Amino acid sequence: MNQNLFAAIPVDLPDEFTTVLEEGHGIRIERIVSQGHSSPAGFWYDQPEDEWVLVLKGAARLEFKDRMVEMLPVDTMFIPAHQKHRVAWTSQNEPTIWLTVHFQKAGMSPGGKPPAETDLFPK
Amino acid sequence: MNQNLFAAIPVDLPDEFTTVLEEGHGIRIERIVSQGHSSPAGFWYDQPEDEWVLVLKGAARLEFKDRMVEMLPVDTMFIPAHQKHRVAWTSQNEPTIWLTVHFQKAGMSPGGKPPAETDLFPK
Repeated sequence: MNQNLFAAIPVDLPDEFTTVLEEGHGIRIERIVSQGHSSPAGFWYDQPEDEWVLVLKGAARLEFKDRMVEMLPVDTMFIPAHQKHRVAWTSQNEPTIWLTVHFQKAGMSPGGKPPAETDLFPK
Repeated sequence: MNQNLFAAIPVDLPDEFTTVLEEGHGIRIERIVSQGHSSPAGFWYDQPEDEWVLVLKGAARLEFKDRMVEMLPVDTMFIPAHQKHRVAWTSQNEPTIWLTVHFQKAGMSPGGKPPAETDLFPK
């Protein structure tokens, strides 16, 4: 099926709007639409899977324990499993459209190549 | 690491330019930059993995045995394993930037949810 990632977005967004685009063996691809949403104060994501994030449109700030990261269109970020993070801010003026891929970095890729080295448990 | 997907693109593109962004257990995320490139005449991709494709910028036509599909910015497409396809055309005027995720749709996703039903072997 052919889908456009800027289509089928509700006009009213009382909550973040998440669409699962694909699911497979150890992987989930989602589109998330935010507009002025952020994580509740004091809430931190602590996820069992690795996550790769791409901002397609809008603007956001991701907060980590030791830093804040600005995310603008086509910025990407790898968030290792159990790296605590929260969405500190998203633009009020337009939808922020995220693409997220949850997966497990440790292991083999299709084609049998070993994954790139990474620190799965940064401080 | 934070990367912008429109950065670090060579000025000259004698060939398609592929960057592996992430690799993990049964998954590979790549950025591919094309400019006027297409698959050789008569060549068809016949891949063992499922593939999810997103065009971030530019314009392309994907050819299947029974149809041609126009791909414009933020169009996506799921290409099941062994569904023969080729890149029939990409724009000469600007880079076409693809995001591709190779994975295996059959199986469980993070969180243990079964994947959506799909025909892995369409004609």
